[in-house]
Amino acid sequence: MIVRDVNKLKDTDRAVSDADWTSVRMLLADDKMGFSFHITYLKAGSEHTFHYKNHFESVYCMSGKGSITDLATGETHNIYPGVMYALNLHDKHVLRAQEELVMACCFNPPVTGTEVHQEDGSYAAPEEVA
Amino acid sequence: MIVRDVNKLKDTDRAVSDADWTSVRMLLADDKMGFSFHITYLKAGSEHTFHYKNHFESVYCMSGKGSITDLATGETHNIYPGVMYALNLHDKHVLRAQEELVMACCFNPPVTGTEVHQEDGSYAAPEEVA
Repeated sequence: MIVRDVNKLKDTDRAVSDADWTSVRMLLADDKMGFSFHITYLKAGSEHTFHYKNHFESVYCMSGKGSITDLATGETHNIYPGVMYALNLHDKHVLRAQEELVMACCFNPPVTGTEVHQEDGSYAAPEEVA
Repeated sequence: MIVRDVNKLKDTDRAVSDADWTSVRMLLADDKMGFSFHITYLKAGSEHTFHYKNHFESVYCMSGKGSITDLATGETHNIYPGVMYALNLHDKHVLRAQEELVMACCFNPPVTGTEVHQEDGSYAAPEEVA
């Protein structure tokens, strides 16, 4: 059994950040669960374009307020506590945080922890990661 | 893109319950994400013995207070907001809710939605589910 506390991981190398977000990797590929699990904090006022071509991701809003736009359809959905979106079509999207968003995220295949967001908003497929 | 709101699913057949818990199935096998995702509410004062022999499960505490005992080692861990446990060894365990626990749960393989808890605390493997 693995037991981890997000608040104890925030100051370790399991937390990765850029200027507008921090993601704490609660489970990664080497935990061998077949998915990875992340708690992600998106700063109020920030906007993010992501396109996980090589991963399925589900994202559950635990707190905050924002919106997501599906760039294939143009449709926008409100994000608030209790709403989940799942990128079952590897959907390219824009996520906006009106208030800080705190999200619980699952990735399949699991993120290894060495990926960086590429220019196209994706993570490399596992076999492309060094 | 799939978008679902747990509060709108609570009164549908995506919510399953027994006397002491309710689980809302946000994603199931037929969503083809490779995992399932559930928001589970465990009543204050309740105690649960589970043994997912055929699944890996991670469980993240969003609110409440309780504990988990690993029945293989006898070790007990406190559960409070921000703590995740992952049953990477299909660990048989007892989960206790001192206060109502609200948990975000991922299963691999994904739950189909037709499983019931068997007498041994497990869900059947996907190929055993009708």
